Amino acid sequence: MLSVAVIGPGTVGEALVKMLLEYKNSSRSAKLPIRIVGITNSRKMVIKSPKVCEEGINTLDWKNKELMEGSDSQPANIESFVSKIKEQYEPAQTVLIDCTSNEGISNKYYEWLQQGFNVVTPNKKAFSGSLDYWKQLKEITSRPGSPMLLHEATAGAGLPTLSTLNNLVLSGDKIEKIEGILSGTLSFLFGEYSTGKATGKEFSKIVQVAKDNGFTEPDPRDDLNGMDVARKVVILARLSGVDVELKDLDLENIVPSELREVNSVEEFMQRLPEFDNYFAELNNSALENNQVLRYVGNLDLALNKYSVKLMRYPTSHAFANLKPGDNIVSFTTKYFPNPLIIQGAGAGADVTAFGIFCDVLKVAEGKFNL
Amino acid sequence: MLSVAVIGPGTVGEALVKMLLEYKNSSRSAKLPIRIVGITNSRKMVIKSPKVCEEGINTLDWKNKELMEGSDSQPANIESFVSKIKEQYEPAQTVLIDCTSNEGISNKYYEWLQQGFNVVTPNKKAFSGSLDYWKQLKEITSRPGSPMLLHEATAGAGLPTLSTLNNLVLSGDKIEKIEGILSGTLSFLFGEYSTGKATGKEFSKIVQVAKDNGFTEPDPRDDLNGMDVARKVVILARLSGVDVELKDLDLENIVPSELREVNSVEEFMQRLPEFDNYFAELNNSALENNQVLRYVGNLDLALNKYSVKLMRYPTSHAFANLKPGDNIVSFTTKYFPNPLIIQGAGAGADVTAFGIFCDVLKVAEGKFNL
Ligand SMILES: NC(=O)c1ccc[n+]([C@@H]2O[C@H](COP(=O)([O-])OP(=O)(O)OC[C@H]3O[C@@H](n4cnc5c(N)ncnc54)[C@H](OP(=O)(O)O)[C@@H]3O)[C@@H](O)[C@H]2O)c1
Ligand SMILES: NC(=O)c1ccc[n+]([C@@H]2O[C@H](COP(=O)([O-])OP(=O)(O)OC[C@H]3O[C@@H](n4cnc5c(N)ncnc54)[C@H](OP(=O)(O)O)[C@@H]3O)[C@@H](O)[C@H]2O)c1
Repeated sequence: MLSVAVIGPGTVGEALVKMLLEYKNSSRSAKLPIRIVGITNSRKMVIKSPKVCEEGINTLDWKNKELMEGSDSQPANIESFVSKIKEQYEPAQTVLIDCTSNEGISNKYYEWLQQGFNVVTPNKKAFSGSLDYWKQLKEITSRPGSPMLLHEATAGAGLPTLSTLNNLVLSGDKIEKIEGILSGTLSFLFGEYSTGKATGKEFSKIVQVAKDNGFTEPDPRDDLNGMDVARKVVILARLSGVDVELKDLDLENIVPSELREVNSVEEFMQRLPEFDNYFAELNNSALENNQVLRYVGNLDLALNKYSVKLMRYPTSHAFANLKPGDNIVSFTTKYFPNPLIIQGAGAGADVTAFGIFCDVLKVAEGKFNL
Repeated sequence: MLSVAVIGPGTVGEALVKMLLEYKNSSRSAKLPIRIVGITNSRKMVIKSPKVCEEGINTLDWKNKELMEGSDSQPANIESFVSKIKEQYEPAQTVLIDCTSNEGISNKYYEWLQQGFNVVTPNKKAFSGSLDYWKQLKEITSRPGSPMLLHEATAGAGLPTLSTLNNLVLSGDKIEKIEGILSGTLSFLFGEYSTGKATGKEFSKIVQVAKDNGFTEPDPRDDLNGMDVARKVVILARLSGVDVELKDLDLENIVPSELREVNSVEEFMQRLPEFDNYFAELNNSALENNQVLRYVGNLDLALNKYSVKLMRYPTSHAFANLKPGDNIVSFTTKYFPNPLIIQGAGAGADVTAFGIFCDVLKVAEGKFNL
């Protein structure tokens, strides 16, 4: 039986908890049983003692939604959460799942791995931040018998991108190029805006629609500045064996420079139409050449060049024909000179939870097929 | 240390042996060490005793190519090959890799699994043949603690298709549709023949070129009859949870009926041009509608309909824009209403060996991350 503890039952974390509970209650879990033994958010935490209930938290606990606020819960404290789990569950048979985007949490992975816990997360911070920290994490998880640290959902959410890249690297393949539309938001914006036909749509209007539908961050500049894509490019580069940092990337921030320092989101949205002409010129010039605009992360491992940029692609290209909102990643390698391409939804609660679930299954396989 | 034994060092098997030996000699294997402890073809077999050499067969043994014909080899006998390995290696820590296309070999998987061996294979026979046998294999590998039986390379070669499908099913996703161009040969033939433009190329000429380049089976009718695609459709259906058999499929054999009983390959190739007009009419009629011809496996799990057919796709469709020879598989599911699509080379020694290697890594992960 694999035990998991979920840190951050938010949008993604809640979908994951539901997925894991349904799995536990179905015949699908016969070979690889998994139980949830603890959940914590930033305010409250709950831990099930194996003495109280062998099968951990169950659907009823969770459905009533009383769990986090009920009498079993305590004030949250991440150190005591993990140490209480350690007292009651064998770390090697346990996965700590970080579903926050908190750097304070991701800074603890090393300590947790040292204690023998497996760690799974969709949180990009540990893998795209400090190079020293990344090297430490790599070192401690590459020793024989060391615990697993998996983060499929940090690039492409539920798409099998990082597991595929890892397997290619382990097999001795040579990664030559990785290109991808890695942000669901920017895929939506440019997929709607730049279609290879004259649509007359204004860029600011599309941003407004996306914002109204919750497809953007609360401040759309957090998407348009490219940092999210940049983090994913760093992750892909590091897994390919190249120790890149965010500052090494050639990054195009498409927030108009005049609007970067604007304080309120409202003012930003109000002034964005001033720049519709700027985007229209780019789009029209692409259109005249039968091209579309796409915001792309580009890793040229042969030339050791890494960029995140608004680029042009011919209308026949796979990136031009992607469904707005979807992600796509293309790996050009020695084995795959015609690239291996993976595409589909790259954001959303269910698909991200699915990516995390795949990692948890991988840990579970590591425990039970003896 | 995971031990592997390779049955059938042919085109794919030899590429795999090289990949595994390079892996063993590199720092990549530090966390998950793997050694080759035996190799057999249909004539000779070699087994390394752990007493003679802890690290198993090494690069030098293999490079000299004397291994299979040298003094260490014995006359091949699959029963004694496996029983000798069992005497010297712990089955649970060992993978038998079947790189033949032999049904006599695949009929032994059950017995091997019973003995505790893990089994990995690109051989489609066991998974697309008798339903009873498939159910037995499923049953014995779904018990807690049972060994692993993995066959990623049986559909899409090195593309992560079956592992993705398995993960989707385990996660509780609902598979609604799977569509794919699953034969490298038929992808090449129709990719070259039906381009969405009038090329004037004759179908028989393209078959001839493909045959001359070794892209087809020795008898191209073994590709054109659709059986290889049909087997892959059966595999995808069964992994989706539907117990389909080859005879349940709506299968279009595109070998002209007049040429099916022709005895020699030469006569078949000589008479194929008589049917160029037939294919040209299909192609022109597609062209008039801005469509192309593609030979596609189609699983409609909602309607419980499974077909393997020459179909038409609009020129803007992903299947129309695939590089000739590549495979593509599209999964439409509850999580992925915009399908999750995987494409790239779906045949060839290196990519198929890579698919097998991914499965071996999965078994290795199951042994060492304790
Ligand atoms: N959403 C997607 O489509 C997507 C796709 C790929 C990757 N991701 C990644 O998945 C992660 C989660 O995203 P989300 O959309 O689910 O975020 P979210 O809805 O904001 O949820 C965050 C959760 O983390 C908890 N949390 C925050 N700080 C904490 C702390 N210090 N200690 C314990 N719990 C804490 C929050 O609890 P409170 O309620 O108490 O604040 C909340 O439960 C992020 O790293 C994100 O980048 C998301
Ligand atoms: N080639 C591809 O691109 C590809 C792609 C996907 C899947 N596959 C699958 O991969 C498998 C291998 O294909 P391949 O192209 O490598 O075939 P191959 O070149 O014909 O090699 C077959 C190997 O199996 C051995 N063999 C045959 N019968 C045997 C027996 N009874 N006992 C022991 N060894 C036996 C042969 O040994 P001898 O030399 O002694 O006859 C040879 O080493 C097949 O199942 C195929 O469908 C291939």
